[in-house]
Amino acid sequence: MALIVQKFGGTSVGSIERIRAVAERVQTRHRAGNGVVVVVSAMSGETDRLLQMAKAISSQPNPRELDALLSTGEQVTIALLGMALHSVGQEAISFTGAQVPIETDSAHTKARIERIEGGRIRQALETGKVVIVAGFQGITAEGDITTLGRGGSDTTAVALAAALGADECEIYTDVDGIYTTDPRVEPRARRLDRITFEEMLEMASLGAKVLQTRSVEFAMNYHVPVRVLSSFAEGPGTLVTNEENAMEAPRVSGIAFSRNEAKITVVAVPDRPGIAHAILGPISAANINVDVILQNVSEEGKTDFTFTVERNDFGRAMAILGDVARHLGAQDVLGDTEIVKVSAVGVGMRSHAGIAATMFEALARENINIQMISTSEIKISVVIAEKYLELAVRTLHRAFGLEQGAST
Amino acid sequence: MALIVQKFGGTSVGSIERIRAVAERVQTRHRAGNGVVVVVSAMSGETDRLLQMAKAISSQPNPRELDALLSTGEQVTIALLGMALHSVGQEAISFTGAQVPIETDSAHTKARIERIEGGRIRQALETGKVVIVAGFQGITAEGDITTLGRGGSDTTAVALAAALGADECEIYTDVDGIYTTDPRVEPRARRLDRITFEEMLEMASLGAKVLQTRSVEFAMNYHVPVRVLSSFAEGPGTLVTNEENAMEAPRVSGIAFSRNEAKITVVAVPDRPGIAHAILGPISAANINVDVILQNVSEEGKTDFTFTVERNDFGRAMAILGDVARHLGAQDVLGDTEIVKVSAVGVGMRSHAGIAATMFEALARENINIQMISTSEIKISVVIAEKYLELAVRTLHRAFGLEQGAST
Repeated sequence: MALIVQKFGGTSVGSIERIRAVAERVQTRHRAGNGVVVVVSAMSGETDRLLQMAKAISSQPNPRELDALLSTGEQVTIALLGMALHSVGQEAISFTGAQVPIETDSAHTKARIERIEGGRIRQALETGKVVIVAGFQGITAEGDITTLGRGGSDTTAVALAAALGADECEIYTDVDGIYTTDPRVEPRARRLDRITFEEMLEMASLGAKVLQTRSVEFAMNYHVPVRVLSSFAEGPGTLVTNEENAMEAPRVSGIAFSRNEAKITVVAVPDRPGIAHAILGPISAANINVDVILQNVSEEGKTDFTFTVERNDFGRAMAILGDVARHLGAQDVLGDTEIVKVSAVGVGMRSHAGIAATMFEALARENINIQMISTSEIKISVVIAEKYLELAVRTLHRAFGLEQGAST
Repeated sequence: MALIVQKFGGTSVGSIERIRAVAERVQTRHRAGNGVVVVVSAMSGETDRLLQMAKAISSQPNPRELDALLSTGEQVTIALLGMALHSVGQEAISFTGAQVPIETDSAHTKARIERIEGGRIRQALETGKVVIVAGFQGITAEGDITTLGRGGSDTTAVALAAALGADECEIYTDVDGIYTTDPRVEPRARRLDRITFEEMLEMASLGAKVLQTRSVEFAMNYHVPVRVLSSFAEGPGTLVTNEENAMEAPRVSGIAFSRNEAKITVVAVPDRPGIAHAILGPISAANINVDVILQNVSEEGKTDFTFTVERNDFGRAMAILGDVARHLGAQDVLGDTEIVKVSAVGVGMRSHAGIAATMFEALARENINIQMISTSEIKISVVIAEKYLELAVRTLHRAFGLEQGAST
């Protein structure tokens, strides 16, 4: 008997009718002889409704009470799904995070799972029941309700799959898999049958928001095969696994991009040891993530130091750098929020030279100026002007032969 | 430092504004130097909203899942009240029934409290926090969420007051106390300063639905003084206590009535031992409560056997009796759903003759025919035709001098 963890997000359980549909889907899977653990999110709109009530009471709601409030969203869904399964004659039992228990640290609104006690779930599975677990939530050792932060239901599903030694973790969503790029930008984008965890991490963190990054890291660390599927259509979806399980990897798996970028340049700063730390230390201390970093060749003992931050951290970063630049004797601090990052992602890059060359050549042919370049083992990213985003994505998608029907 | 348990019902916490108002009220009480434990219900309408979702999925929702669903209603309220208290600078902490824990049996949707572990609450009170507890809910020894049934928040409040040895349990509601009768029937009804538990039980079970019967029984058994107050107006309310604490009791405290009555007569049944059991046994086996029972004087070895049931059990009871009456050789079974019960209630009756005489005389003067009579130590009930209800209540209210401004 295979053990499957299935996760259904807010849209998939967004109405009574959809909850019924999920119940049928779950029952079919159970009747086929599988043990099934179902993780569900709050019905779509419910978390926002609860948040609005909280905000109406306080602009900064007490985090412990906020978690107690938000966790009711998933609790409603598990109970309704439990009823729906019983009503079609399927034995089932629901558990809140506290009932499992899913033990977390006490970082309210963004808690991390520390331990899952699987005994109660295993017992229920052994008696032939479908087990339903509330996503997104846990409980501290002191008995306080916590939440894992937005998208935490994916993490719950993967963590449960790891704790229970499940054969596969199926994430049902409103897309039918992972695509070579965003189909809204490139209509010829193609669904991938397989992708590695590492590629998925790059794709996810670069803006392909199908799976929460934390859940992918968790799956990678605990070797949990994850499948991304559509709640509304049949199909094999995309299997996310370790590299060794993947079929012969294409050289580039997909083109990811992010609009959430801003660029900052500290101009003509004295080029001496420790300058990077002097500039980035205060930024980091303000909890601002720095992504691409570039230091120009020094001229006359001066250098330009450029880096990117998330766009919504731009204002704060500029304010901090005003002081820092004065202190360092820099000439100026320049900012640009009209930039984006476009990346070619693929484990195949490791063993294939020429990927970078193909990329730069394709962009040059379209007269797209590259402002910054960053490389890793499995991706090459370029920072370009925002106005070129769609053109760059389509150009690279074609250059790497990713479109539907293309031979890879 | 006095310890007060305050309970606010669904209407009192029915909106963000009202939750804020409750927070202010609670804080005022806390600042006056009292330890305060607040028990809250679900926001008005919320339990019905959840029930509707459950009913949309199944006409008979699984009871365990129904409890998991319904318990979210109070959890939302405790969290919002917790935030509201924090936002006005009042330290506070919320607990679900499971977090307290309030241990119950496993009779889902109508569980009974078995034990309250007060350690976590006491600890919070000692650090100067206001403690907020979700009413209506508990948890079994196995960790399953239970609910106490409608109105169970009163029971939670009284049980907590008993477990914590609170000085008083204040029940905030939409009326400003217990009245001598329903003011909608008799506008001259008067608020009582005090009432005994026993009287309150008779008033409540007879239709004055201010306090849930179970909570009054609980308060009586554990000697918890209960005060019924308005959430929306200032005032002393009505104190419900043991008889020995009451001021000199008036002879009759109030006139209660119930429309939820139906009368059944088994006509000309052979008058022999065991006949009552033969008739009422099957009724009781069907879980139908019988209230007033009357057996006429026998004529020619035959007797008429009459009793009342709740009106919504009438159809079932008549169906059961069809068989029973045939089997017993009864002549006929007659039913009447257009009857009501009106009662004079008061601990003073015990020592005062003449209450019954006053009651019967007053009704006779208005030509109201009495169909059945039932008496106890502290009440006299009559069953009359429904059309006389208002007239009978007003007549008795006046006959016992209960109206506002009357000397008692």
